[in-house]
Amino acid sequence: MTEARLATRLTERLAIDHPIVLAPMAGVSGGALAKAVTEAGGLGLIGGGYGDADFLDAAFRDAGNTRVGCGFITWSLAQNPALLDRVLAHDPAAVMLSFGDPAPFAPAIRAAGGVLICQCQTLDHVRQALDAGAEIIVAQGGEAGGHGAVRGSLNFVPEVADHLAGAAPDVLLLAAGGVADGRGLAAALTLGADGVLVGTRFWAAAESLAPEGHRTAALSAGGDDTVKSKAVDMIREKRWPDDFSLRVRRNAFTDRWAGREDALADALAREIPRYAAAAARGDAEESAPICGEAIGLIRSIDPAGEILTRMAADAVLRLRSAGAAIKRGA
Amino acid sequence: MTEARLATRLTERLAIDHPIVLAPMAGVSGGALAKAVTEAGGLGLIGGGYGDADFLDAAFRDAGNTRVGCGFITWSLAQNPALLDRVLAHDPAAVMLSFGDPAPFAPAIRAAGGVLICQCQTLDHVRQALDAGAEIIVAQGGEAGGHGAVRGSLNFVPEVADHLAGAAPDVLLLAAGGVADGRGLAAALTLGADGVLVGTRFWAAAESLAPEGHRTAALSAGGDDTVKSKAVDMIREKRWPDDFSLRVRRNAFTDRWAGREDALADALAREIPRYAAAAARGDAEESAPICGEAIGLIRSIDPAGEILTRMAADAVLRLRSAGAAIKRGA
Repeated sequence: MTEARLATRLTERLAIDHPIVLAPMAGVSGGALAKAVTEAGGLGLIGGGYGDADFLDAAFRDAGNTRVGCGFITWSLAQNPALLDRVLAHDPAAVMLSFGDPAPFAPAIRAAGGVLICQCQTLDHVRQALDAGAEIIVAQGGEAGGHGAVRGSLNFVPEVADHLAGAAPDVLLLAAGGVADGRGLAAALTLGADGVLVGTRFWAAAESLAPEGHRTAALSAGGDDTVKSKAVDMIREKRWPDDFSLRVRRNAFTDRWAGREDALADALAREIPRYAAAAARGDAEESAPICGEAIGLIRSIDPAGEILTRMAADAVLRLRSAGAAIKRGA
Repeated sequence: MTEARLATRLTERLAIDHPIVLAPMAGVSGGALAKAVTEAGGLGLIGGGYGDADFLDAAFRDAGNTRVGCGFITWSLAQNPALLDRVLAHDPAAVMLSFGDPAPFAPAIRAAGGVLICQCQTLDHVRQALDAGAEIIVAQGGEAGGHGAVRGSLNFVPEVADHLAGAAPDVLLLAAGGVADGRGLAAALTLGADGVLVGTRFWAAAESLAPEGHRTAALSAGGDDTVKSKAVDMIREKRWPDDFSLRVRRNAFTDRWAGREDALADALAREIPRYAAAAARGDAEESAPICGEAIGLIRSIDPAGEILTRMAADAVLRLRSAGAAIKRGA
């Protein structure tokens, strides 16, 4: 006897048990985390990050024979496009492109037989992704951890669903940004998504590669304790397009520099090595834990498989209890 | 034979048919709109706005014998506290306080037998509202139209639900920000809310007092076409606390001034009368339509009663179709 589960177009298309995909978080979603998510019945995506070929090879090696995919920061991939072939050689279950024009990379992904997932922050991104032949759109709200834009998931997801219903009804939709438990998954399905892409909850998983000090510090945070800024990218020397900023847990570093980017620019020579040293030791005050508003829903670091199983089971319960509010007409 | 409906703790507590409350939008939610929402089975709240006693008296008069409530901008009410007694004399079904400390006004509301609703944008606001004795908390996400803060509804609502479950399990919860149709209502219930507070969708209702030109222009907008800034409050000479900014439809005015508030400050003598004249004629480019991201889900101006009835019916359908994804265990 197995538990009830949620079967959607996504579980059917990807041949997975639960409509839950791991966000390919740079430096966080390694082979072990991706493997754990897939083994629990979701789909794990390795974080291609800023193009470290050795990290990618190690991640696929760590995932072993488990079916996983990979996600890229598109503008970064454009600076090192050979990485895509390197990943396609691993026969990934899916390739996700975020933050940039997917068109240059879509043909190779489709030719290799991979599922193309495009993460979008605006309706214009969605149109661009459909033009490139995306099979799955991720509608990412600004409450997400890490990079993103400004839309609220609760209304962006149904707006994208409406667009897909008209323009590309066979393209699937994942909700991202703020989804950390069964309630978020249940809500995503009622909003018209076929599943969810989950970052922060798995960032706080046992198999996450995020610094231990960052994850531990984040557990005490509420959702009001995050902040978006350009300061963290400046000090990490990541040259992000202006359209995207980074959401992190607020700390001593962001209190000092977020909103004071001009002053930080003048202090970079001194601050960059200081930040790097803090990050290396997992200092959660002087380097930034990269998590989203949903950190306020997370109280413990658990194995990814347990997180996923509980999220799926709780979503079933939530849909049933919300459905119980329906009173038949007389 | 009546249609199926959603019965929650909110419908029971307020003795209404559908768990939908009209946001008390300043200058928009007049007596006719509040009346229409109540008559369709929700609860209409008149917008107390910036303290125009004549507007309030007229609104209650327009609502006639229909049971409606009223909402105040708390920091503005503090400048003219006698308005509260004036409203309480109308025996409102509920009084909602937003944007400021509710403590000074809560005792009079409770003494008059009214239901105290407090709108909150952070967990600290929630704690403050509970201390003041709120019976209903509105968790408002930053995607909302008009004034608000920054949290995403999709994760703020469940975080507030968790807080209430521990601290005040009998206090009810409404989701606000981004809810414009049955999908949003269904999602709110799965997230742990007892109902929703709806602004933008009713802003675009036939009975809304928003300028016709503003509403018509907004119909062509997508959710990406709104912007938050301080510029509109500056030019309207509304002295809002720094914690809140105003979301409006992006237009020629915001393109010129949003993010350039310092320059606007120098130009106020010239720009204030220009803006006021544009607002008076409903010019949607030179004065700001005050709507939220959910404008991207709205395609027509309809009677409020139809909007509400459809929202409630669609939420039932959405919960049923999402629930149909549940496959029983084997």
